[in-house]
Amino acid sequence: MQPRVYAEMSRFASFDDLRAACLDLPSPDSRAADAVGAREARLTKPPGSLGRLEAAIAWIAAWQGRNPPALDRVEILVFAGNHGVTAQGVSAYPSEVTAQMVANFARGGAAINQLAREAGASLHVVALSLDQPTADFTQAPAMTEAEFLEAVAAGYDEVSDASDLIVLGEMGIGNTSASAALSGALFGGGARFAGTGTGVDDAGFARKRLAIETALKRHEEACGDPLRAAASLGGRELAALLGACLAARHKHIPVLIDGIVSTAAVSPLKALRADALDHTLAGHLSAEAGHRLLLQELGMTPLLDLGMRLGEGSGAAVALLVLRAALACHTGMATFEEAHVSDKPA
Amino acid sequence: MQPRVYAEMSRFASFDDLRAACLDLPSPDSRAADAVGAREARLTKPPGSLGRLEAAIAWIAAWQGRNPPALDRVEILVFAGNHGVTAQGVSAYPSEVTAQMVANFARGGAAINQLAREAGASLHVVALSLDQPTADFTQAPAMTEAEFLEAVAAGYDEVSDASDLIVLGEMGIGNTSASAALSGALFGGGARFAGTGTGVDDAGFARKRLAIETALKRHEEACGDPLRAAASLGGRELAALLGACLAARHKHIPVLIDGIVSTAAVSPLKALRADALDHTLAGHLSAEAGHRLLLQELGMTPLLDLGMRLGEGSGAAVALLVLRAALACHTGMATFEEAHVSDKPA
Repeated sequence: MQPRVYAEMSRFASFDDLRAACLDLPSPDSRAADAVGAREARLTKPPGSLGRLEAAIAWIAAWQGRNPPALDRVEILVFAGNHGVTAQGVSAYPSEVTAQMVANFARGGAAINQLAREAGASLHVVALSLDQPTADFTQAPAMTEAEFLEAVAAGYDEVSDASDLIVLGEMGIGNTSASAALSGALFGGGARFAGTGTGVDDAGFARKRLAIETALKRHEEACGDPLRAAASLGGRELAALLGACLAARHKHIPVLIDGIVSTAAVSPLKALRADALDHTLAGHLSAEAGHRLLLQELGMTPLLDLGMRLGEGSGAAVALLVLRAALACHTGMATFEEAHVSDKPA
Repeated sequence: MQPRVYAEMSRFASFDDLRAACLDLPSPDSRAADAVGAREARLTKPPGSLGRLEAAIAWIAAWQGRNPPALDRVEILVFAGNHGVTAQGVSAYPSEVTAQMVANFARGGAAINQLAREAGASLHVVALSLDQPTADFTQAPAMTEAEFLEAVAAGYDEVSDASDLIVLGEMGIGNTSASAALSGALFGGGARFAGTGTGVDDAGFARKRLAIETALKRHEEACGDPLRAAASLGGRELAALLGACLAARHKHIPVLIDGIVSTAAVSPLKALRADALDHTLAGHLSAEAGHRLLLQELGMTPLLDLGMRLGEGSGAAVALLVLRAALACHTGMATFEEAHVSDKPA
């Protein structure tokens, strides 16, 4: 199976151009997944007794197209953007924190720095025009078509052919508002995906819900198209996450998604094509209220539920540890024959 | 706070002697836990946004009595035993598999070998008189008082003062029957804690339930005392797990417990004293049916739910990865002041 290369499309020309790329997707390699299952059945344990660890290895193998799969080169991509909707008082922190946290990432002081090191992954942080927040989506579309496509391309181009797996994370004051609005546009139900984000108080939460409801009404017509909805209600970092997720699929690279923002960001792909997120796994169920609802809409069961709600790819980075444990078992365990252990019935 | 030393009790003289040790327990160090909370509040993240990772570090600190806590020396203790109840046809595998798996542990071929390496823990496997299975508990008490106390002491003596944390695992064909019987004795409801273990078929599962019901009736009088219940219905590896868990408490060492067997094994401690398991954390919810019920009885919420049901300490070893991630964040992250990140309201 040859990876399809979209290098000539590092800039998408239009919504239609991007939509075509979103509809042209490779399938998993079922023979690699079957080979994983055949080996797992011979390892010294009752069949299936490693549960989701076994299923995760079959999933990685299917998308990498090989057994055993590899996790030698794992990259955590964190995209950062700023949001005009913060003018509506929707967040507990000021917009300046986005750039301050990007500087913190660069100096190694954030949670994701520690988790990336612990999980043996490299961390790449991409700040997207932080001094130019998107438009306040209660007043106008967050991005023009050109701005949106540029951010999608930025994410797309960040994915290396050499990656074995990528983890998608983000930073952006105001982006749980964008995520909840985009989720509402795609799956209905108004502001039901809104939560308290970094910890907004009751009055701020009421403003957040109002901003989302206002935006959903204002951009109702755009919401008929998942990509236009993403441009109108999302943000640059969400668009980049969509681009990176699409690039990973085209390059046969499995993806761990994180909390509500990275999940909402890639949801338009699923709205365009039902199997578009089959190469992704939800690493962690965020404590941010809307994430559970969103994963239910997507039919995804997260690996972990540790009450985290930080973003940055932090929950998915912890899930990466589980994938490494699963791979260690798959490649390192003895078979019944090698270990002279009886696998016959009692 | 000085650790209380029970070295003179490396052999417990009687049920009464052991019971006295089980009732004499040190408390956690709340100042160390408070110090964790104070630091977590200053790290560059919204308060509480690392969820159970933050709580886990406070728990480790409280039992180690220091902040930051350490996970430099973590030991996985796997106790193995054989069970006379296998004569009733309760398991999918023959009893010989216990010794075969112990040999597999020694050669490094089992799941727990891979997981221990991945989690940076040392693995200690203790085989307890595998050539002398306990008595078939449908016919007689599984162990005499002396046999039980010897196994408890074997576990107790395996815990090193130098350990930062221990993980409790086990191997023993037939031991989910013993665990379900012991759980039924402690918490009532007959055979409701029984599951299919390593994968017994329907007829075998019926025999397993019958054996448990028979044993609970036969040993009804012994079941009034948690330690006599453990001797009558448990097994040598379960007794050793109880001893190791007790030793860890006396030595101020936090404990990760694994699936239904290690949980059932330490449950008599809770029946003797309500706070006796406060130094333990449930690493993983087993797919073995009774584990959820048992954890509910104990009021414990497992860290992970990955559908594993292997024993060997495997689920807890994966949970150890989460504790390492939590500690990396706690010790490695920058504070708001260090990183010049605003923690003022928007």
